Amino acid sequence: MQALRFHEFGKPDEVLRLEPLDLPSLADGEVRLKILAAPVNPADLNLIEGTYGVKPELPAVPGIEGCGEVVESRSMDFQAGDRAIVLRRAGSWATHVQLPAENLFKLPAGLDPLQAAMLKVNPATAWRLLTGFATLEPGSLIVQNAANSGVGRCVIAMAKELGLRTMNLVRRAELREELLALGADVVVTDDDAGLEGAKAAGVEKPKLAFNCVGGESALRLMNLLAPGGIHVTFGAMARRPLTVPNGLLIFKDLQIRGLWITKWIEAAPKQELDEAYGRLARLMLDGSMGLPVDSTYSLDAFDAALERVGGAGREGKVLLVP
Amino acid sequence: MQALRFHEFGKPDEVLRLEPLDLPSLADGEVRLKILAAPVNPADLNLIEGTYGVKPELPAVPGIEGCGEVVESRSMDFQAGDRAIVLRRAGSWATHVQLPAENLFKLPAGLDPLQAAMLKVNPATAWRLLTGFATLEPGSLIVQNAANSGVGRCVIAMAKELGLRTMNLVRRAELREELLALGADVVVTDDDAGLEGAKAAGVEKPKLAFNCVGGESALRLMNLLAPGGIHVTFGAMARRPLTVPNGLLIFKDLQIRGLWITKWIEAAPKQELDEAYGRLARLMLDGSMGLPVDSTYSLDAFDAALERVGGAGREGKVLLVP
Repeated sequence: MQALRFHEFGKPDEVLRLEPLDLPSLADGEVRLKILAAPVNPADLNLIEGTYGVKPELPAVPGIEGCGEVVESRSMDFQAGDRAIVLRRAGSWATHVQLPAENLFKLPAGLDPLQAAMLKVNPATAWRLLTGFATLEPGSLIVQNAANSGVGRCVIAMAKELGLRTMNLVRRAELREELLALGADVVVTDDDAGLEGAKAAGVEKPKLAFNCVGGESALRLMNLLAPGGIHVTFGAMARRPLTVPNGLLIFKDLQIRGLWITKWIEAAPKQELDEAYGRLARLMLDGSMGLPVDSTYSLDAFDAALERVGGAGREGKVLLVP
Repeated sequence: MQALRFHEFGKPDEVLRLEPLDLPSLADGEVRLKILAAPVNPADLNLIEGTYGVKPELPAVPGIEGCGEVVESRSMDFQAGDRAIVLRRAGSWATHVQLPAENLFKLPAGLDPLQAAMLKVNPATAWRLLTGFATLEPGSLIVQNAANSGVGRCVIAMAKELGLRTMNLVRRAELREELLALGADVVVTDDDAGLEGAKAAGVEKPKLAFNCVGGESALRLMNLLAPGGIHVTFGAMARRPLTVPNGLLIFKDLQIRGLWITKWIEAAPKQELDEAYGRLARLMLDGSMGLPVDSTYSLDAFDAALERVGGAGREGKVLLVP
């Protein structure tokens, strides 16, 4: 087998190497996957840089998500030919991974491997954002920034499935039609003009806000929320902390929370994971939820993949296809 | 009767006047109190300035808390001679108030009227901070800044009563012995040196933090908290917003909340209020909880009272005693 590995933390294009590794033998209960596709996520780059929430033992193989086909199984739950995604202890930037069966989710037949490879993080984040912080009445409005992101698109699809409505803040006004076509209920630009427009249109105050930007955009969501509303941060694209005026906590009773989806995946009972991922996989299978793919690269072209991830004009995820 | 009133929002010493008013007749279920003592709280000053969470109809009588003796009652629950504090729709900066009985809490006999006059806000804030946000195991540690404030002292007393331990941040190191004598478990200065000292002494991470300062002190509490901890803001003495690093929300899973005690008092069922205030009044009566009194002034000396409140070297509350 081959794997991309790093022996020290640093810039991905400087520390990552494609290395031949021995295929370890399978322990009882373990399953070996041949990886079909594995995305390059910001969290992977942070892991390599040593700036992620946890630091792996070195040397390490990055790749927190990926889809593969079972080539050998010592678990009753899997047989050769099944397709699965890695949920825990991944290391998917490789030709093969071997993991205990409880760290895998078996995919329904017919799912595109590229889409399936992106099932673990973004769709599950949308699921937890919408269901993990509040129990909302059908028809309730939620609001999110960076609505065109992978998570943003999944939130739009999953909210529809749950009978909720979405207000979507985007940086570029030209995304409006595209998000409305995906099922967004309201799309406004993420600036003061956008907020005034929403107010003027009589949009009610949402009860739940999802923030992956930070700074002023995060504050805009706080001001949009209804009293008692919940504001959940799951990313920090603007790389700026939140500023929270005291009155929004004391008088408006906002709750400022955070979500790290990896922690949920690590800690949730397997049955809860299977139910959530089953639901998310069905939405992908019937086409109601999809994530844009920008490009695919083989493992030995990882330098080009990394360059594409950091480059301008990217439209969707970059995936490695071993 | 006489009352301090303001006809427009503005600086208290400019807009407040002592005015004669007709004693209104009592409706069924109402009770008339002769006010014995009413503190001057920051919230009263904000109310007069028009910067409080709600704006009253004008003209208005300030005074959100106060203790009085029943002089006339049209409620089965009160008779002349009973003592009570005003809980809702107060206006206590007056010789008399008349309120529906459900807006009053009947005091146990023997309570000092000056102490009782301060029962509504600070002790109840401590009660809600300690019981309204988390269910803590006995022996758990909480942390607070401005630990020498009225609420801070009540938190120390109430935490002892509830079997909890307190870590107390103070600006002046010389307060240490005094707060330890009150029952504080740990007292450190509210600066980086204080934090390092606590760390070096092996103090465990608290699960709940109470912030009435804001700015850097609020951030210090966030850094002190255990993962998953809850940070509650109920005041903003530093008049600076909170800055919340994204990682403390995403990876550390902190919850940033707020408390406005007035809202709880307005919304809580009377039975819940009676139980909480009964418990708080007993702690005052047996001397385990007390609030320092700086000075008292008659209503017609309100100018001097306001000056004292804003002046240097004040050691406790200023109260009006009509």
